[in-house]
Amino acid sequence: MDIGIIGSGQVAQTLAGKLLELGHGVMVSSRDVTAAKDRGDWGVIPSAGEFAAAQTALGRAAAAGSFADAAAFGELIINATAGEHSLDALQSAGTSHLHGKILVDVANPLDFSRGMPPTLLFCNTDSLGERIQAALPDTRVVKALNTMNAGVMIDPGQLPEETTVFVAGDDQKARDWVSAEVLTAWFGWRHVVDLGDMTAARGLEMWMPLWLRLWGATGTGVMNLKVVTGA
Amino acid sequence: MDIGIIGSGQVAQTLAGKLLELGHGVMVSSRDVTAAKDRGDWGVIPSAGEFAAAQTALGRAAAAGSFADAAAFGELIINATAGEHSLDALQSAGTSHLHGKILVDVANPLDFSRGMPPTLLFCNTDSLGERIQAALPDTRVVKALNTMNAGVMIDPGQLPEETTVFVAGDDQKARDWVSAEVLTAWFGWRHVVDLGDMTAARGLEMWMPLWLRLWGATGTGVMNLKVVTGA
Repeated sequence: MDIGIIGSGQVAQTLAGKLLELGHGVMVSSRDVTAAKDRGDWGVIPSAGEFAAAQTALGRAAAAGSFADAAAFGELIINATAGEHSLDALQSAGTSHLHGKILVDVANPLDFSRGMPPTLLFCNTDSLGERIQAALPDTRVVKALNTMNAGVMIDPGQLPEETTVFVAGDDQKARDWVSAEVLTAWFGWRHVVDLGDMTAARGLEMWMPLWLRLWGATGTGVMNLKVVTGA
Repeated sequence: MDIGIIGSGQVAQTLAGKLLELGHGVMVSSRDVTAAKDRGDWGVIPSAGEFAAAQTALGRAAAAGSFADAAAFGELIINATAGEHSLDALQSAGTSHLHGKILVDVANPLDFSRGMPPTLLFCNTDSLGERIQAALPDTRVVKALNTMNAGVMIDPGQLPEETTVFVAGDDQKARDWVSAEVLTAWFGWRHVVDLGDMTAARGLEMWMPLWLRLWGATGTGVMNLKVVTGA
């Protein structure tokens, strides 16, 4: 499958690397492709030689382009931008390029302007997932994977036991497909909890402040929660 | 130990029952003791006969009183009111009665005025834990146990594996004592994570929206999170 990743940072690179390894076509993207390349953002294709090698090995394109390029390229879209830029980036990507597609939103609306740890730009009665779905009514938005760091997203097996990942979104079939394909088949998640419609993104994003404190308390970002239920 | 519980609802009753069973002196409390008794809030002392029996069995007082009565009675104080009423209740309890004491705050600032599920009255850059500590500067406030339902608070062993409980607060010794005594020795928790100062209460209270969606998705409130870390 061809996958367009909106974003070029650490999360985008980690997802792209895994998706390439799985044999998918991947395009990562930036607002300013030249500037991003100069910054060295293209960690997954760090040199022309490695890019060529990856293309040869995979027989598919591992490419970098504008947000609109990635949106047009992908049959599946992943929003891996910083949450504060997500709506602008998706606007630039173009609603027509995203029409009818599934978009997996892994971002958090973190606000670093108040210092560390970040707070949220909005929450409680609103969420980034809801704002993205409202801005893209013809796109099937699924919130997932925003509750952990990028390394755990693509390799849950590095934790010593099964932990939990969530999906939320207004389109049940899109949630089911993301659960079965992206999370389970591709990334190896075994415990996926479907939280229902996109208002559940509020809770998923509001997990971030506790995650950030846990990161400080445990000293590792290789960490996740496991939901345990009784009888 | 004599323990004053601020509150008389389900959480207060469940905690009182367990603390009585452990042999502590307990006083639950209400803004209006007569009204609370008429409502049947005193589930732990449902009749004069049982109250007398409990007193005989325990050799200590299982009593009900005003917020001020409970605050004066307790060597340890637990805030088990609904979050929207916590600050008023603690004001009524009297700062002088709470001076120097440890207060365990198990409440969440839930806002039911917008319908179900509830949102939070405030969050992100503020928390109930911080507001209580600010209102009671001479009281050693420890946020704990607000991340689960009352049954799990006092009986974590009903879940099929060890799950996680948290402490936060500005007084390290108070956090340590609550962790070792209340959580571990009394209630049987084995995995206590110390999140540091009271600003961590933001994350602990912001867990509620996800907990509420999980309650809906799993169909049970006998549920908790386990924090799993890798290397």
